[in-house]
Amino acid sequence: MLVTFLSDYGYEDEFAGVCRAVIASLSPGAVLVDISHGIPPGDVRRGALALEAAAARSGPAVHLAVVDPGVGTNRRAVALRAGDSFLVGPDNGLLALAAERLGGVAEAVDVSATPLRLEPVAPTFHGRDLFAPVAAHLAAGRPLGAAGEAVDPGSAAGLELPRPRSEGDDLVAHVLYEDRFGNLVLDAAAGELGDAGSVAIAAGATEHRAARGRTFADGSGGLVVYDDSSGRLGVALDRGSAADELGVRRDDELRLRPG
Amino acid sequence: MLVTFLSDYGYEDEFAGVCRAVIASLSPGAVLVDISHGIPPGDVRRGALALEAAAARSGPAVHLAVVDPGVGTNRRAVALRAGDSFLVGPDNGLLALAAERLGGVAEAVDVSATPLRLEPVAPTFHGRDLFAPVAAHLAAGRPLGAAGEAVDPGSAAGLELPRPRSEGDDLVAHVLYEDRFGNLVLDAAAGELGDAGSVAIAAGATEHRAARGRTFADGSGGLVVYDDSSGRLGVALDRGSAADELGVRRDDELRLRPG
Amino acid sequence: MLVTFLSDYGYEDEFAGVCRAVIASLSPGAVLVDISHGIPPGDVRRGALALEAAAARSGPAVHLAVVDPGVGTNRRAVALRAGDSFLVGPDNGLLALAAERLGGVAEAVDVSATPLRLEPVAPTFHGRDLFAPVAAHLAAGRPLGAAGEAVDPGSAAGLELPRPRSEGDDLVAHVLYEDRFGNLVLDAAAGELGDAGSVAIAAGATEHRAARGRTFADGSGGLVVYDDSSGRLGVALDRGSAADELGVRRDDELRLRPG
Repeated sequence: MLVTFLSDYGYEDEFAGVCRAVIASLSPGAVLVDISHGIPPGDVRRGALALEAAAARSGPAVHLAVVDPGVGTNRRAVALRAGDSFLVGPDNGLLALAAERLGGVAEAVDVSATPLRLEPVAPTFHGRDLFAPVAAHLAAGRPLGAAGEAVDPGSAAGLELPRPRSEGDDLVAHVLYEDRFGNLVLDAAAGELGDAGSVAIAAGATEHRAARGRTFADGSGGLVVYDDSSGRLGVALDRGSAADELGVRRDDELRLRPG
Repeated sequence: MLVTFLSDYGYEDEFAGVCRAVIASLSPGAVLVDISHGIPPGDVRRGALALEAAAARSGPAVHLAVVDPGVGTNRRAVALRAGDSFLVGPDNGLLALAAERLGGVAEAVDVSATPLRLEPVAPTFHGRDLFAPVAAHLAAGRPLGAAGEAVDPGSAAGLELPRPRSEGDDLVAHVLYEDRFGNLVLDAAAGELGDAGSVAIAAGATEHRAARGRTFADGSGGLVVYDDSSGRLGVALDRGSAADELGVRRDDELRLRPG
Repeated sequence: MLVTFLSDYGYEDEFAGVCRAVIASLSPGAVLVDISHGIPPGDVRRGALALEAAAARSGPAVHLAVVDPGVGTNRRAVALRAGDSFLVGPDNGLLALAAERLGGVAEAVDVSATPLRLEPVAPTFHGRDLFAPVAAHLAAGRPLGAAGEAVDPGSAAGLELPRPRSEGDDLVAHVLYEDRFGNLVLDAAAGELGDAGSVAIAAGATEHRAARGRTFADGSGGLVVYDDSSGRLGVALDRGSAADELGVRRDDELRLRPG
C-alpha cells in the first residue's frame, strides 16, 4: 500500500530518514513517497494544508504526518480512517483537512501506547517510535484496531482556518501561506471573487493593480489573481514574488476589489 | 519501470510530493527516484544539464522533468521517446540535452490535452495534472500514442548552451553553473584544455593560478582545473568555493591559459 | 533488500539523484530510502552520527554513505559487513559508528578498483561510479567478495568523538551538533547526568538554568536537558533554539551541574 510522509523534520538531520528506514524495514512491500519535510518547524496549519493537497490526489494510502510541537506531552497520538485511506500522526489538527477531504473521520484509534511501538519510545521522537511503525503496519495490512484503542471519531482534533469576509464589493481575505515562488495562497475559495478582468489589492496602506487571470503569465510581468491548484484564490507576480511585491506574509489581510 | 523526477518545485511546498503521490497511485509498480527538486526557479538550462547527467547513467526509464516558467501559456507539453527511454515535460528545451544523450528524439507526442490528464487541470500545476499522469501511465506500459497526438520529432525544442572559443593559446569558456560545493562547471569539454601542469585563469581583471588535476585534492589547498564527472571542464578550490575565490557566477567568462 | 543512502551532496544538484538512478537501474527490486543529503559538506562526523541513528533502527540493509572530502585521493573505498547489514563508502571514519552499532566489522573488502564500477570512473564522483554500483549489487544479492579484495576487518577507519569528563559535581560535555530545531546533542550519554530536577549550564562566561526533563515542553518555555533519541544528552529550548540561547555551536564545551 502507498505510504505518504510529511513532516517538519527538514533535510539536514536524519529524522525523516530514520522514519523511512523504519517503514521500509517493517513493511518492505510498501511504496513510500515523501510529500514534504520542509514544513516550517511547528507550523501545524501549513502541514495540514500540504497534507490535504496530497490526500486529494492520492489513491488509497496511509498518510503519515508529523508536525508535533507538543511531542511527549499529553496530546494524543492517533490513527484515523477516512474513506479507504488512513491518517497517522499527532492529534493536534494536522490531519483534519485531509480527513475532511477524504470524507471525514470514519474510525479513530488512540496510538499513544500502541502495541506496535518500537521500544524504548523516545519522548522527543514519536515519529520514529510510534507513528512510523503504526503507518508501516497499516500499510502491510494490519487492521486499525491493532494499532490502539478505538476512540470517538468525532473527538479527533479539528483545525480552524482564518475566514474571508465580504465588505460591500470588497473581499477581505488572509494569507494562508507563501509558496517557494512567492505566490500567496489565500483563505478565500476561487469562486468568491467573480470574473472581473482586474482586481485592486489593498495590502495595508498601499493599493496595487492585479490582472484576474488563469496563470502566472496572465500577469504580463505584474500581479495576477488566479485560481490556485488547491481551489483557493492565489496572488502571483509574473516571474517574481508577490509576497515581496505586496510586502505581506502569513496571516496578513488583503482587501480585493474586482474591476 | 523506473521513473526519475526533476523539478524546480523546491523542498518546502508539497508540489513535488503531490506529483509523487499521483505517480505512485496510478502506477504502483513503478520505481520512483528523485533527481533534484532544487533547480533554481525557472532555470531551464540548469534543469536540462541535471537531467542529462541522470539520463546518462540510467537504464530504460521515464524521465519526468518540470521546470516550467511558461506553465499555462501556449508552450507545448510533450512526451518524447529517445532510445528505450521516455522524457515527459514542457517543450521549452528542458528535455533537449537528455534526449540528445539518449540518441535523439525518435518519437514525440503533444500531451497538452492528453486523455490521461487529471481533471480539473490546474493552469498553474501541469506537473500534477498532465505530466505526472503521463509519466505514470508510460511507466505502467501504456504506449506513447495513448498520451497524445504524434508530432514531428524534429519539432521538439532545443537548447542553446554558451560556447567556448579559442583565442591564441587561451581557451575562453563560460560558467554553466556553480554546484553546492562552489565548484564551477564550464561549457568547454574536458579535452579542450590539454595536459599542461598548471593553468592561469583570468576572471575579469584578476588572474589566478590553478593546478591542472584530476581531483579536488590536486589543488593542494588552491584552485584546480579538472575534468568534471559530466565530461566538462570544472574549476574547484580544494576544501573551498571556487565561485567565491574567483568571484564569478553563472554565465561569467573565464580565460584559461595552460602552462 | 533495503538500501539506505546518506551524503553531503545537498538538494540543489543532481548528485544524489544520479546515484539513485544508478541503484534503481542496477537493482530494480531494491527498496531505496534517503537518510539525509544535507550533511554539512565534508562533515564526516555528522554523517557518521546520522548513519548510526539510521542503522540502529533498520532491519538488514545496505547502507550507502558518501561524505568524502578526500575523493580521488588514496583514501580507500570500502564495503563492510556488520551483522546482517552492509556499509559502503569511503574509509574515512564515516561508517565507523554504524558498524559498531551493528556489532562491529565482520568482513571488509577494498572496492577502490571494484569490478562492479561504472566506467569511466570520475575521480570526483565515486558516489556514482564506485559506491552506488557496489551498493546496488549487494542489494541484489551479489556476495561481498564480488565487490573487491578482502582486507583486515580491523583495518577499517575508526572515528574519534570528543569525550565528556567529570570535574567534581560538574559534567563537562561538548556539542556534537546542532539539529534543525536548534537542539544541541552532546557527547555525554544520557545516564551520566543523574536525575536532579534542574541543571545549571555554564557556556563560556555565562550561566543558564535548565529543567531536567523528558521532552521539550518540560522546559516550560525555557531550557531543558533531556535524553535524546540517540541515547545522548540533549539541550533544548522549549519552542526555540538552544543553540541561539546559549550562543554555542559544534564542539563548544558546556559545563553541566545538577541541582
